[in-house]
Amino acid sequence: MSARILDGRALARRLYLEIAPQVAAFSKQYGRPPGLGIVLVGNDPASEVYVRGKVKAGRDAGFRIDVERLPTTASLDDVLALVERLNTSNPHDGILVQSPLPPSVGPDAERTVFDAVTVQKDVDGFCSANVGRLVQNRAVIASGTPSGVIELLVSEGIEIAGQHAVVIGRSEIVGKPMALLFLHRHATVTICHSRTRDLSALARQADILVAAVGQPGLVTPTFVKPGATVIDVGVNRVTDPLVIDRLFEEGHPKLAVFREKGSVLVGDVHPAVSEVAGALTPVPGGVGPLTIAMLMRNTLATARARAGASGT
Amino acid sequence: MSARILDGRALARRLYLEIAPQVAAFSKQYGRPPGLGIVLVGNDPASEVYVRGKVKAGRDAGFRIDVERLPTTASLDDVLALVERLNTSNPHDGILVQSPLPPSVGPDAERTVFDAVTVQKDVDGFCSANVGRLVQNRAVIASGTPSGVIELLVSEGIEIAGQHAVVIGRSEIVGKPMALLFLHRHATVTICHSRTRDLSALARQADILVAAVGQPGLVTPTFVKPGATVIDVGVNRVTDPLVIDRLFEEGHPKLAVFREKGSVLVGDVHPAVSEVAGALTPVPGGVGPLTIAMLMRNTLATARARAGASGT
Repeated sequence: MSARILDGRALARRLYLEIAPQVAAFSKQYGRPPGLGIVLVGNDPASEVYVRGKVKAGRDAGFRIDVERLPTTASLDDVLALVERLNTSNPHDGILVQSPLPPSVGPDAERTVFDAVTVQKDVDGFCSANVGRLVQNRAVIASGTPSGVIELLVSEGIEIAGQHAVVIGRSEIVGKPMALLFLHRHATVTICHSRTRDLSALARQADILVAAVGQPGLVTPTFVKPGATVIDVGVNRVTDPLVIDRLFEEGHPKLAVFREKGSVLVGDVHPAVSEVAGALTPVPGGVGPLTIAMLMRNTLATARARAGASGT
Repeated sequence: MSARILDGRALARRLYLEIAPQVAAFSKQYGRPPGLGIVLVGNDPASEVYVRGKVKAGRDAGFRIDVERLPTTASLDDVLALVERLNTSNPHDGILVQSPLPPSVGPDAERTVFDAVTVQKDVDGFCSANVGRLVQNRAVIASGTPSGVIELLVSEGIEIAGQHAVVIGRSEIVGKPMALLFLHRHATVTICHSRTRDLSALARQADILVAAVGQPGLVTPTFVKPGATVIDVGVNRVTDPLVIDRLFEEGHPKLAVFREKGSVLVGDVHPAVSEVAGALTPVPGGVGPLTIAMLMRNTLATARARAGASGT
């Protein structure tokens, strides 16, 4: 038995087909496209890759995307000044601060910077007012990754109401909002984390299991009830041959990639889970593309709200 | 075997012993006591009882407590005008809107009114910014009932970290904030509700079980792992003899109360659970007194924050 693969790329393409005409209509009505300002501090290679993906997806769908760069040496004040400029910039409807910020910015800087983004342009749904509205089940903007997971489950006809969803990971970007979105769709929800005892037994109760911890291959077949839906949010670049040995049997296509490139992207879910799960998201090509699509949908939503409010 | 009774009244008394000298010091420093305005619309008998309890507890601890009444016929605009007056009133550091509001105010009125309370005076922790900060584990003000439950568990030496906490009920006032507070104290958390399948089996996994649904005696011994801690948030006034029959065996003291008064207060936990649980909160005298104590602590916190900000 092999799990059905939940194709996030295909769904993301369908979402862009919905979004693009709405972006075009917005541009026609207001004489400008919906705009997103991306704050990119320093030159973290992974961040560069993520930002390129967001720029391409956004521009292809008709958005204005501006990458506002600051050097690795930027101070917190520099970053805050940039955010403040974007807060009051008319062509920018959304602001995204690419995480992580470099050490030069200081400890707890991300929280300070995320908080500085005005709620009207908070397309990541990270500010406390948006998070609060999410708890109250009246959010317009919710963090892209968990929203994308819900979108995928719904589009694949996987029932959520009445199911037991187990979320491994309690981050503010994925774990907690994921649990809340499941709860509002009437799932029973369990949140597990590093302090959870007997994690595999709890995970095995799940009808829908979400792994979002950043540990390559943590979720092995013993974590999975046969036929369960498994959502892999982890994106881990693995370079350690010992980890590779633990994950891939001889003949697995990713083994060839590793031998050629010296590294390979793997999720939090062990490849052998595909023999147990009923449905499974791949890494890459699962949740990742949906995160970006939801970001773009959020940008369109903030653009409309701003345009509606100001009439411009 | 009979469960240890977790005495909320006793803990509330100890909390007031801590709070009262701080209230006195505040009054001395700023020339006025910390003040709470309670908005009471209409004449719901249960609300009258709750408000009396808050007034007495607050005044005994040295707070200024003003009950601002509006008639049952008050419109939403009337209530909002009153909230707005309290928002800008200097002697009031906290504002509490007693729920439920009467039907005259209109549907969804509570949300609108709660939102109108300025974040600086939101002693119930209901506004979206305070709820968001709770998710982010940096709340100063959290809803009184779940905060009181945590206070009780800690004071009784009941471990939370690493334990499995199961919360039955997903309200914004108790269920969701309770789950978040457990999560931040490193419990594994499951949230159950009306759509949960096999509720008793899930509840039976709990090391700490919280019932907050408003169904008299819902949690029977089959819901409870032997030795578990059971927190009963329900406060139900029962007048139906059939329900009474299901709950109390001949000789139970509450049966005598019922026969004398025609009604009796019962929680969401069946009395027979005391034979299975390791520790149990009574109703009344468990969570209720702590809710009020935490409200007063929140009022002191907002008073200090306001005084610190304005220097007055």
